[in-house]
Order: sequence, then structure tokens, then C-alpha cells
Amino acid sequence: MKPSEQALRRPFPEALAQRLEARFGMRLSRAESIRAHHGHDESHFPDAAPDAVVFVHSTDEVAEVVRACGEFDVPLIPFGVGSSLEGHILATRGGVCIDCSEMNKVLDIRAEDMLVVVQAGVTRKQLNAELHGTGLFFPIDPGADASLGGMAATRASGTNAVRYGTMRENVLGLTAVMADGRVIRTGGRARKSSAGYDLTRLLVGSEGTLGVITELTVRLHPLPEATSAAVCAFPDVVSAVNTVIQTIQLGVPVARIELVNELGVRAINRFSKTTLREAPMLFFEFHGSPAGVDEQAHTVQELASEHGGLDFEWADRPEDRSRLWAARHDAYFASLNLRPNSRAITTDVCVPISTLAECVSATQDDIEASGLIAPIVGHVGDGNFHAIILVDPADTDEVERAGALNRRIVERALAVGGTCTGEHGIGIGKQGFLVQEHGEAVDFMRAIKLALDPHNLLNPGKVVPGL
Amino acid sequence: MKPSEQALRRPFPEALAQRLEARFGMRLSRAESIRAHHGHDESHFPDAAPDAVVFVHSTDEVAEVVRACGEFDVPLIPFGVGSSLEGHILATRGGVCIDCSEMNKVLDIRAEDMLVVVQAGVTRKQLNAELHGTGLFFPIDPGADASLGGMAATRASGTNAVRYGTMRENVLGLTAVMADGRVIRTGGRARKSSAGYDLTRLLVGSEGTLGVITELTVRLHPLPEATSAAVCAFPDVVSAVNTVIQTIQLGVPVARIELVNELGVRAINRFSKTTLREAPMLFFEFHGSPAGVDEQAHTVQELASEHGGLDFEWADRPEDRSRLWAARHDAYFASLNLRPNSRAITTDVCVPISTLAECVSATQDDIEASGLIAPIVGHVGDGNFHAIILVDPADTDEVERAGALNRRIVERALAVGGTCTGEHGIGIGKQGFLVQEHGEAVDFMRAIKLALDPHNLLNPGKVVPGL
Repeated sequence: MKPSEQALRRPFPEALAQRLEARFGMRLSRAESIRAHHGHDESHFPDAAPDAVVFVHSTDEVAEVVRACGEFDVPLIPFGVGSSLEGHILATRGGVCIDCSEMNKVLDIRAEDMLVVVQAGVTRKQLNAELHGTGLFFPIDPGADASLGGMAATRASGTNAVRYGTMRENVLGLTAVMADGRVIRTGGRARKSSAGYDLTRLLVGSEGTLGVITELTVRLHPLPEATSAAVCAFPDVVSAVNTVIQTIQLGVPVARIELVNELGVRAINRFSKTTLREAPMLFFEFHGSPAGVDEQAHTVQELASEHGGLDFEWADRPEDRSRLWAARHDAYFASLNLRPNSRAITTDVCVPISTLAECVSATQDDIEASGLIAPIVGHVGDGNFHAIILVDPADTDEVERAGALNRRIVERALAVGGTCTGEHGIGIGKQGFLVQEHGEAVDFMRAIKLALDPHNLLNPGKVVPGL
Repeated sequence: MKPSEQALRRPFPEALAQRLEARFGMRLSRAESIRAHHGHDESHFPDAAPDAVVFVHSTDEVAEVVRACGEFDVPLIPFGVGSSLEGHILATRGGVCIDCSEMNKVLDIRAEDMLVVVQAGVTRKQLNAELHGTGLFFPIDPGADASLGGMAATRASGTNAVRYGTMRENVLGLTAVMADGRVIRTGGRARKSSAGYDLTRLLVGSEGTLGVITELTVRLHPLPEATSAAVCAFPDVVSAVNTVIQTIQLGVPVARIELVNELGVRAINRFSKTTLREAPMLFFEFHGSPAGVDEQAHTVQELASEHGGLDFEWADRPEDRSRLWAARHDAYFASLNLRPNSRAITTDVCVPISTLAECVSATQDDIEASGLIAPIVGHVGDGNFHAIILVDPADTDEVERAGALNRRIVERALAVGGTCTGEHGIGIGKQGFLVQEHGEAVDFMRAIKLALDPHNLLNPGKVVPGL
């Protein structure tokens, strides 16, 4: 916890605790273990427990909690499953954690409109399980089995974004509780609208600082008639990335195109008991009609072979595909496993595709020079890649070197017109980068924050610096 | 002009006129004809001329004008080509019109990143002409040859949106002058980002009320390897629309799928000298590989024939396709031509696709019952359709009946979870509908407006009611 944050932490008002306890009974918890669980995420930042946790069941309950906290001038932090990588849910100033995990109902599957209305605590895997039999799926897949509310709040994406977009493109509308306790509904069920300011897109990516998302209407996509998946090893990352660049530039509608570097593949093999060739590797998935999938695969195979791709191993059976993608999704945990008791500082730059080979390659050199262990994985079809820097959180020198490495990677991305974060968000660690990236625009973000949350109670200390 | 607006119009400060004249010389005009031209759009609302027009050449010049207007508390209205359908550019409270039409440089074509940076006055046709030879195109095509700044400001779309998205999905970043004269740059060149609040999407669709857009970075798309286009007549609109619904639900990646009803086809035939069968008709375009286009066309032909589609006329030669789509694009002017000296009140609802057949059909009945002339055209793949209601603006009874018809259509759309405007915007005529559609969320739009433009000088009286 930064000392300045520590100083902002005030004693929790007993009267508020009593009020919430009277209203929520056992669903209000001040137990040490519960608080500790809610003050911990997947980031490397120190834990910071809230003073209390409320397990809410409805939008109205969230509104009640928000109004009560407002009365006592107490911060509140929305919580999904706690898989944030940027400290979003850390209660650095204390306050009440609003745990949405029991708001996990799929409210309305509208298959004919290819959309679904869900409560914020529904997770992506749960949603896809409940969509079984509809012929539709929800494509957005961050590494963790995150809640949809959390995914909207961080503008998450994942491996399918190159074809299906991110939460930005797939959230049609939201129900949110605003700082004054009022409930608003943004967007709607139409695929497009020009009706007023885009509050949906403003709340998506606002990391709980502008409103508490309680329900979402999201787009669904037809399950592809045919799917095929493959991996291909390359002599070096530059050849792999150049294959990606050409695939995107040719407009091949590839569903997934993911890079894992040599160290990343080694981590995956060890963790997921796979036997992938330990070389820079692309993971592909193609969606479409049988003929369309064949055509895409053929085009990409040709490009890969022009760039020295060594082999193309197909995973045609659904169970092989699932195993392959499960292994890819577990790359983060596989990486952590390379070094017991480490935590990860995960970089998240996203760059224009033409600069991707140069950025990934220079990042590998930087990692080499730093002496740190940091596998690289990436949603390279979008220009987004992660170095998962493994650190011993107790080793301040190492943490500092990791910070310097991260800074170098971000500064290179910004220099080519990229962003410091493609999908993880700003949280508490990237506020300086936000200013580097957006300059005076951040002042207008601050003005919006203060207009919508004048007392700075919604997840304070996140996103906008200086609040 | 509403009387309340008239009352808000104040004398134009002579000192401001002199200041701007000294700075901009001939590029500041107070000539009657120039002012009149800038106080007129394609809507049915009464003209409202600004007090002065400045022809700006750069972002810095826009900032100068904004600061000068701020000093004198004078409203300003950004202007592209004046093709708005909702009164966006009408200077209902007077003030200075910032004409961006001479800011028409394509600044940076980055073919390898599939993006381009343009000044706000570049029109969509100009951009595509300048992209010639790059293998890329910009797909968004409202009826008019609008400026990209104007298209962003109204969150425009058009016939290709079903496949390529709207301005919401295709603007990667903006340069904008804010109310205090500061210049911000939002977004960037990366395809996705989670860095802070989405100011890009907030400005897209803000209709000039939150900032003056001066430059845009927009996505480009690879020109399809193969293209084919066709029209197909149907026995009734319901059969046509049901064909659309199934096409979308099957996930066929159709590039364009447009409805024109019988009266619309008659208008097009008369105006564009085409010989289309005068029946409800779908216009299709397919993009992809040659095999992919064949496959899509085959699927859609089968669906059409199941729904009683009468014939499928192909336009395979580029010149035939251009003629066909030019005719479709001119449908608005063709409709106006059905009744000399009329103006159009154009409805713009967008509804969930499952309700589209019922909404279009009920709209036809409403038109019939109203006794008004109103062809229907629509981007039906998105659920968006327009009734182009032709009125004699001097006939108050007729204008009132048209208003009542519009209201009926909007209320039906809202009842099924749709929106009052799919692509034209709120402007000055739909503020009541905005409140019906979004309820208390409009209060938060107002809070954002006042936070970013506290003196309400940027295109006042548009979008947010009561300001």
C-alpha cells in the first residue's frame, strides 16, 4: 500500500457496520478471513483488505449499500471473482467491498436477438454453460474465469478479440448504480444507437470508479459451423509475429492467433503436461463454414511456411482443442509455476500491428538484459502481448528491476502510438503511464469522475491519478 | 425555432466579430448568404443561421476560436457539410459556426496498420478516393457524402454497418478542442486499450456538445477479394424482413442487407432511372474470397426462396454494382422527389432483430392510416429502418400528423427495447424521446455536459434536454 493511501484510510464507522448488519445479517461479514480474501487479487501489489464485505443479491441491494456508504462518507469497491491483475479490488483506503458473486443469474437469453441479460456476478464459463443448446456463445475469454461485471469494468478481452471484439464491442447495455444510489440503464437491445452520450462505453473500462455495474446485456455469436485449431512452431518470435501481421493485413477472419515464446511453451509443457515443441509458437483457431475454415487454414499455413514455420499440428477433435486452449489459458499460472512462491508483474502493452515484431523482439532483448524470468504470451492479432515478469515480492531490488523493465516496454509502446494496457486496465499501478499516454485528456477524465462521483467514494485511488 | 431558443439568442458582440476578423480575415464571414447556408441542414426544422462563420484550417485555429467565443460567452457550432437530419448544425441560439470543410487533408495513411489519420472535414468519398491503390477502404457510408468529423459527432453508420460496424467501432482516436480551448488526443493507434475512461466513445455521438472534433484516426478494412451484389423482390415486407432475420441469426457475414419497400423502389426508379420491380426489395452485397462469396450468396438465396423471394438479380460488374448502390444511397433524395417542394421527417428507429418484421409491418399500417406519403428504407441487418415522411412544412396539420406518426413508431421501438435513433442522432427534435428511452441516465449525461462545458457554449440546445 502506498503511504499516501495508508494516510487516507480512516476508521470504519461502527454505525455503518451496524446498519448494514441489521439489513444484510449474515451477508455482511467483517471476519478476518473474508476480508483478507477480498483484499487480494492476482496482481503483485500488497494485499489491502476492506473493512467489511456485503454479499449482495440485487441491484436494489447494491443501491442500498451505496446510499449507506454515501451517508457515512465511506469508500466502496465492487468485487467479482478477484482475478484483477492491476490491484483494482484492493481496498487501499478501506471501506465496504460489494461482493457480486451471488448475483449470478442469467436473466434472459434472447437467442433470436443473439443477446443475453445477466447479473454482474455471472462468470464467462458459467454463461457459456448456460448457453448450451442455443447454438450461441459468448466469446470473450480473459485468462481467468472472471465475472462479466469485472470484465466490463476492466474492458477485458482475451484470445477471441481479434475476431469478435472486446467488452467494448460486446456490451450492448448496462444497469449500474451511480454514486448517489440512483440506478440507471444504459444502451438497450438494439445493435446500434445514436441516442445521447455513450454511457455504456463510459462505464465499460471505468474500473468501478464511475458506477457499480449490476446487470449487463451482452452480444452473443453463432457457434461456428466448423472449427479447427492448430499450433505452429517458428525459428524465432520475429518470424512468428510477421506471420500474424500478414494474416491480419490480408483480412483473414482468424478467430484466435496467439503467440507464446519459447520460455512460455516450456512453462505450459511443465504445468499442463503437454508436449509442445519448445520454440516460439503460434496457436490458431479458425471459425466458419467447413469450406471457409479450410480456406483460412490454407492461407495461414502458406504464410507460416513462407516465414519458416516448422510444422502445423492440428487439433481437430473438440477434446484436443479444449486441452490446447486450456493450456494456453493457463499460461499465466504455468508461468508462476516456473518459480515457486513468485508473484507476477504482467505487462500489457498493445501496439499498432506494423510495430509488433520489433516491439516483441526488443522486449525479449530487454528481458535478457534484465536477468529476470519473464515468459511472453500475447493476443498478437490485436497487437497485444504480455511479459509475465516473475518476482520475489520480498526482494525489493528485483521488484525495482521488474518495474524498470515494465517501464521500458511501456515507453516503447507509447513511442509507436500504442497503449500501456490492452486489456488489464490502469488500477493502482499505471496511473503515471495513463498521464504519459493521454496527457491533458486525463484532466477531463478527472472532471467526469468528479461530476459523477463528487465525494470520490467509488473505488477511490484507481484509474485517475490525484484523486 | 422553438420560442425558448429564440429567447436565448443574444446580440452578437461586435468586439468578438472584430477579433475574429482581425485574425481570420476573409475566412471570417458575416455575409447573409454564407450564414444562411450554414443555418440549413437536411432536416425539416426551420433554418437558423449563425451570426458568423469561420473557415478554420487547423486544430490550433479551432482552439483560438473556442477561446475567443468563451471570452465573450458566445455559442459555437461545428459544421462539416451540413447533411444532418436532426438539426444538429442549426444555430438556434446564434453564435459562431466553425466550418471544418477546409480542414480536409488526409494526414497519414498507415496501410500496414489498416488505419488513417484525417482532418475532420475530409468526406467519406474523398477518403476512399485517396485510399485508391492501398487495397483498403473505409466502409461507413451514410446517405450523404458527409465529413468524417460530422459522422463521428452523430455516431453515423450506413449500409455496411452490419458487417463493419458504425463510427463507434471504427474510430480509434480523436483530436478534439474542449470547451476551455485545450486540445486533447484520445485513443491511439492500437486496436484496443484499457487505459482510462473511453473519451473516444464519449465524443463519438456527442453531436458537437462536448468538444470540437478536429482530427480522427479511423480503422480501414481490406478491400474484399471478391464482391457480388444482388437485389431480390418479395411478395411483402414481412417475407423480406424474415429473410434478413434468418440471415443474421445464421451468422452469414453479409456486407450489406438493405430493405426498400414498394413505394421506396418506385421513388428510386423515378429518380435514378432504374427498372427495379416495384415490390418490397432487399439489396445484398457479399464480400470475401470468391468461394466465400459464393457460399454466402447460396445460403441467402435459399433463405430468400423459402420466404417467397421472387427472383435474384445479380450485379456482378463493378459499374452495375456502383449504379445499384448509388440508387440505394439516393433513396432519400428520390423520396423527396416523389413530392415537389416537400421536406422529410425521417424516422430512425433501431430495434432488436426478432421484432423487426412486426415493427416494419406495423409501421406500414401506421403510414397507411395516417394518409401521409412515407417510403421505408432500412439497414435491416442492424434492425434499423427509416420512414421518410414527406411533408409540406407550411402545412401545420400535416407536420403535426407526421410528428404523431413518428412518435408512434418510436414508442413501438422503445416498447421492444429498441432506440429512437439508430444513426441520425438526437439533435433538437428527439430530446423528449431520449428521456423516454434512457430515463434518469439523462441526468448523468447532463452532469457530464456541465462538467466538460460548464458555460454550455458547445452546440447548446442539442442532445441533452433543459440546457
